[in-house]
Amino acid sequence: MENKPKIDKEFIENLIQIIEDQNTEQALEITQVLHAADLAEIYNALTIDQAKFLYLLLDQEKAGDVLIELDEHARERFLDSLPSDVIARQFIHEMDSDDAADVIGDLSEEKQEEILALISNKEQAGDIVDLLNYDEDSAGGLMAKEFVKVEEGWDIEHCIQEIRTQAEVVVELYFVYVVNQYNKLIGLISLKDLLLNNPKKPIDSFINRDVISVKTDESAEDVARIMDKYDLVAIPVVDSIGRLVGRITIDDVVDVMREAAEKDYQLISGITSDVESSDRVWTITRARLPWLVIGLFGGILGARVIEIYEFDLGIYPQLAFFIPLIAAMAGNVGIQSSSIIVQNIAANVFEVESTLKKLMKELSVGLMNGIICAALLFGYNWLTASSMDLTIAVSISLLAVILFASFFGTLIPILLNKAKIDPALATGPFITTMNDIVGLLIYLNIGRMIFNLHL
Amino acid sequence: MENKPKIDKEFIENLIQIIEDQNTEQALEITQVLHAADLAEIYNALTIDQAKFLYLLLDQEKAGDVLIELDEHARERFLDSLPSDVIARQFIHEMDSDDAADVIGDLSEEKQEEILALISNKEQAGDIVDLLNYDEDSAGGLMAKEFVKVEEGWDIEHCIQEIRTQAEVVVELYFVYVVNQYNKLIGLISLKDLLLNNPKKPIDSFINRDVISVKTDESAEDVARIMDKYDLVAIPVVDSIGRLVGRITIDDVVDVMREAAEKDYQLISGITSDVESSDRVWTITRARLPWLVIGLFGGILGARVIEIYEFDLGIYPQLAFFIPLIAAMAGNVGIQSSSIIVQNIAANVFEVESTLKKLMKELSVGLMNGIICAALLFGYNWLTASSMDLTIAVSISLLAVILFASFFGTLIPILLNKAKIDPALATGPFITTMNDIVGLLIYLNIGRMIFNLHL
Repeated sequence: MENKPKIDKEFIENLIQIIEDQNTEQALEITQVLHAADLAEIYNALTIDQAKFLYLLLDQEKAGDVLIELDEHARERFLDSLPSDVIARQFIHEMDSDDAADVIGDLSEEKQEEILALISNKEQAGDIVDLLNYDEDSAGGLMAKEFVKVEEGWDIEHCIQEIRTQAEVVVELYFVYVVNQYNKLIGLISLKDLLLNNPKKPIDSFINRDVISVKTDESAEDVARIMDKYDLVAIPVVDSIGRLVGRITIDDVVDVMREAAEKDYQLISGITSDVESSDRVWTITRARLPWLVIGLFGGILGARVIEIYEFDLGIYPQLAFFIPLIAAMAGNVGIQSSSIIVQNIAANVFEVESTLKKLMKELSVGLMNGIICAALLFGYNWLTASSMDLTIAVSISLLAVILFASFFGTLIPILLNKAKIDPALATGPFITTMNDIVGLLIYLNIGRMIFNLHL
Repeated sequence: MENKPKIDKEFIENLIQIIEDQNTEQALEITQVLHAADLAEIYNALTIDQAKFLYLLLDQEKAGDVLIELDEHARERFLDSLPSDVIARQFIHEMDSDDAADVIGDLSEEKQEEILALISNKEQAGDIVDLLNYDEDSAGGLMAKEFVKVEEGWDIEHCIQEIRTQAEVVVELYFVYVVNQYNKLIGLISLKDLLLNNPKKPIDSFINRDVISVKTDESAEDVARIMDKYDLVAIPVVDSIGRLVGRITIDDVVDVMREAAEKDYQLISGITSDVESSDRVWTITRARLPWLVIGLFGGILGARVIEIYEFDLGIYPQLAFFIPLIAAMAGNVGIQSSSIIVQNIAANVFEVESTLKKLMKELSVGLMNGIICAALLFGYNWLTASSMDLTIAVSISLLAVILFASFFGTLIPILLNKAKIDPALATGPFITTMNDIVGLLIYLNIGRMIFNLHL
């Protein structure tokens, strides 16, 4: 970390000057000092032409690394500006098969074919084509074809030979996978064991046969959960009959985990996922509009509900004072309850509690919070000498609304999940809007009842 | 994965029966098949006595692994039920120093001292005491003392010797760190290089000197960001003058990342973080109450605001119809804007855009969404033949409120961050409540103005 320049405004301005001066020597020096991830990070500060000048100076390995570190939208824009042969030669050539498939998979089919034909290493091209067949969000879509496999019965020396022939391709090597003669995965050996034992020894005695693997069609999020749960840095991927076909490393899975967390976070904040803050205004607008329109129609429905009580409001305009309070509390409680359920479902831990028990627990929490909040509100209204009718109506309504919102907030995501719909859709504006409307109905009805008792 | 039993209700019921029957043999068999993470997962389905029976059957290594996989609250409860010497002997003995320090650090000081005195391996006890000095949320608090270090100038054979003596302790070994005679970190060597080169060769020629390290006082979240950004599976930790003192592995950092994401998610959903759904009702209630009380006082403030306009509402009760709509839209837009900023700050990428530019961008998005939503609302009111005054007042207000909420939602987290306060505090109920109140003020004022024009 120590010899690296700090990437700040001054550094960027300086770099842009160097690029504009076409100062190849100094630019080359900077690219050598910076890590690929740093080079990707500064992409957004450069124009496409500036980025092109800089990235085409990189050696092939680093160029590939930079490309894979760019965020998807930036990468697409960048590749669109390059001819296919430059992409194949400069950027794809030294890439691992999984990264290459990710990059190529995002391009148009025409461009895909063009680039694949231009890749000089035919084995790499074949691997990429194989990987493109898998769903992007599955283990097959995440895995790389670069791994070292050895056969049971070999001795250590033989394994080391095999590693030597593969060493160029497999940069990150922590384990060697062991297969039988039919290529079926039967275990793994750590490099440590190969290093510390007599080279003439057969490997069979120190194969770890308790190996955790995933099938190619396992979902990316499940792969992430398994690697997280069992603390793995790499996991072998097998086909439907157990043959070893690939390997997934933790860095790719960390990306999956981050993206899943971001998606849920964006859903609860009312943003269609898959939008970056560096996107254009119209893209961002479009990502936010759906939830706003849902909120808008919810609000219109709410207006209709209140309209029913127009007569009551004419007589007791004070009833209107607490409309936002009731709506806000309903929304807050609903989100609190639903987000817990969504997080639990996402974590996918073995659930001891039944749906009924969960509902009862949430209702208990709602009851306690409801009583406390209602008491506070009662106290406030009593102290400020509001009418006793209003004081009672508002407090009872608040308790009822909180209870209802707890119930609804818990139930909806559970039901969505049972219907195989992403429960995170139930968070954010959706649950708020629904609870708003029902909250209003409860409040205005209770209000009318209590006021009518005194008429 | 294949020979493992599926952990479901049936499995648990069967296991409980085995435990209740004190069937040691069968219980032992099950503990041998299950991974430590699985054994930890079923903890919540067992009573403490059942868990004790099961976990005391484990060999020491697995017992330690299970303990570290338990969530914090469950672990505390479990350890409280055990005498110190059982904890030291059965659970701590085979643990890595970082895990042991995590476990012991959560106990009372009295119990800490008792256990430390009972640890038979005095080196381990010393390492744990060293680690307890670091802040839990720093690199020092995350690191383990188990790593292999070699000195520059050694040959490969010497390194392998060193690994052999350390091999018992360092289970996950991917790299060997190289220091100079003063213990200053100067690089690393991969096991692959040790394996593939002549044992008589000095290591100096294949030391990777471009090693990324962190200082002990680096925050845990920064460590996670660095390991994620540079795709590292392990990172060495150095003290203030660059001496190698520890190593952090990716599995610990994945936990940090997950917890950070959960914290932000809980904050935006209005839950004080650090609460598990398996906690007791009162614990969960307490975690949710603070934001509800904030919402409650916001609602009361909102009621006061509306009270100011009681006279107007008496004349135009229709004005009340759209109060929830305005409040809800203000809240939704505010959360959309603030969550983007919070996510950006959390990702800590180098920012090209200045605060002013970000504000302008959010305002542009707000303007577009505002115009679209206001037009939709105008259309609805126009079609349903509401009074033209109301139609105009509500639409103009909606546009104004959306613009304002975009501005506020962007600015507040930026300001909090500049004041070194966690910007995530600005999400969720806080921003909703603030925007509710200001939204009401804007709406009722515009409404009064437009109606008065016609009086």
